[in-house]
Formats: sequence, C-alpha cells, structure tokens
Amino acid sequence: MATPPNHAPDHVPGRSTDRPADLAPWHAPTPEARARFLAALRPDANGLVAAIAQAEGTGEVLMLAWMNAEAVEETLLTGRVTYYSRSRRKLWRKGETSGQVQHLIDLRLDCDGDALLVTVRQDGVACHTGRRSCFSWGLRDGEVAPLEPVLADPAGLYGGGG
Amino acid sequence: MATPPNHAPDHVPGRSTDRPADLAPWHAPTPEARARFLAALRPDANGLVAAIAQAEGTGEVLMLAWMNAEAVEETLLTGRVTYYSRSRRKLWRKGETSGQVQHLIDLRLDCDGDALLVTVRQDGVACHTGRRSCFSWGLRDGEVAPLEPVLADPAGLYGGGG
Repeated sequence: MATPPNHAPDHVPGRSTDRPADLAPWHAPTPEARARFLAALRPDANGLVAAIAQAEGTGEVLMLAWMNAEAVEETLLTGRVTYYSRSRRKLWRKGETSGQVQHLIDLRLDCDGDALLVTVRQDGVACHTGRRSCFSWGLRDGEVAPLEPVLADPAGLYGGGG
Repeated sequence: MATPPNHAPDHVPGRSTDRPADLAPWHAPTPEARARFLAALRPDANGLVAAIAQAEGTGEVLMLAWMNAEAVEETLLTGRVTYYSRSRRKLWRKGETSGQVQHLIDLRLDCDGDALLVTVRQDGVACHTGRRSCFSWGLRDGEVAPLEPVLADPAGLYGGGG
C-alpha cells in the first residue's frame, strides 16, 4: 500500500509541513552530525543554551529564548525552530499555539558554546504582543516607550508565549 | 583654575573618549530617564539581563553577554558598552584590555524586560578568537567548523574576554 503523502516514512512530530513554497526544503543533518553539534554545546547548570532568533534577509533580531539538548535536536531534525519554555518546563515549538512558526535557515554556535544564533524565516510576528520583534521598547523623550507597531492582534495569537 | 581637558566636570570612569569622528557624540539620558529604563528591567535571580550586541548598519549579531543594573547605567551614561563578567564577577568595559570597544548607538528592551538589544559601532572584532562575531561556528559537511575568518591576532587582543 502506498504511503499517504502526509505520512511519509520520515515523518516526525513537529516536522514543519508548512514550509513556505519559496523556501528550500529542510535537509536534516545526519544523526552523527547532530550529535557533534550537541557535543559542542556548553549548557548552563539547567541544561540550557541561549538562542537568538534573527530574521533572514532583514537581519532583525526577533527574540531571545532558550534551548535544551532536545530542543536543539528537534530543531535540527525538523527545520522548525523549537525552544525550551522555562516557565512551562517543556518543549515549545514556536508557533504551536500562535501559528507564528519559525522555519530554520541556519544554526550557529558561539565561541564558548553557550549561545546559538538561529537564522529563521518568521511567519508573521515573533512577539506575543503582536510586534514583529520582542525588542521593541526603548527610551524616547525620557520614557520607556514602544518603538514598533502592533502588526497582529495579540488576542488572535492566543495571548502570550506562543 | 581651568579644568584640564581630560578631566571635564562630567568625566566618569569608562566614558569613551575615543568615539569615532563620524559617529554622533553620545548624549546620555537624564538620571530620571535612566532610572525609568532600569525600573523596566526584570533581572534574573543573579541580577542579570541578557544583552545581545548587534552591529549598526550590517545587522551582524556580534555576541551575547550579560548586564547588571550598574552595567546598564554605565552604558547609558557613557555611551560605551559595559557588561558584567560572570566569570570575573565585575564590570567589563568591552575593549578595556583588547581595545575592541563597542560604542553605543541604541539600547532596546524586550517584551518581558529580561533581555536587551544593544546596537553598537564595533571597533575591530567582537570575538576573543579574532573573528568579527562570536557566532562563527556551524555544521558543514557533518562537522562543527569555523565559518568566519580570523581578522585580528587573538594574541594581540590579550587572550580572551576583553
């Protein structure tokens, strides 16, 4: 019996089935390569490394979150950016509730192995406030003020963290 | 008696006296504005917020480090980016040993107050390995490899952390 197209033999939970048509398909590194990448990490006492998401093309810094080894492994395997939520204490497939998925373009490691730079194609907005980037506040006229517009209704993103 | 030019009344330790000629002079926010910015921070249990340095113009993400309230205050006051070194447990005026100073352009806060995006003019290189960015490693042909060239002799940068 033929394998249904949406249940290919290499299907794994969290694999992005909605990668934009103009984005190259994700080719997961081999298990050995993923293991080497994981071995180069120097997680903190909680098993976490910081992960900075940057938008391909524009270079916008979108957010800072955290990954454990499992999140890094799943990100490399699926091409869909997956973090570890410190508040919910579980894997957080970015966009799983909000729909604002991050498609992996490249993953870089820093010189001491405790931080990652994640180049992404961001669906919609990264911030739970509906702004493109979480880094949208700064001093203007002596006050801390939002500097970027709200592009998506936060209520429609299911309110936070997604 | 006249104030010597290098000891102006507003001189503070760490004030950058070598801001590039083509860069606008730094105008520190008022004490009240700085206090409002500090009040918007949500430091972790160690009193720290993550700080991502991004190069003006190119958008390169250069490094991830940490700031405590004193480092944020000094950065805003002087226009010279100052971190808190977790290993040395003291303020770290970026470039104080290496000469690779970061001149502040803008400082942004994220939606939950525990991370900063620091737009900088980077003198030379940010990484102690002599590479422009600390995020210079990634998977190629199944191995973790440096992806960026060494632009400055690490021995000449006084070996690390500066």
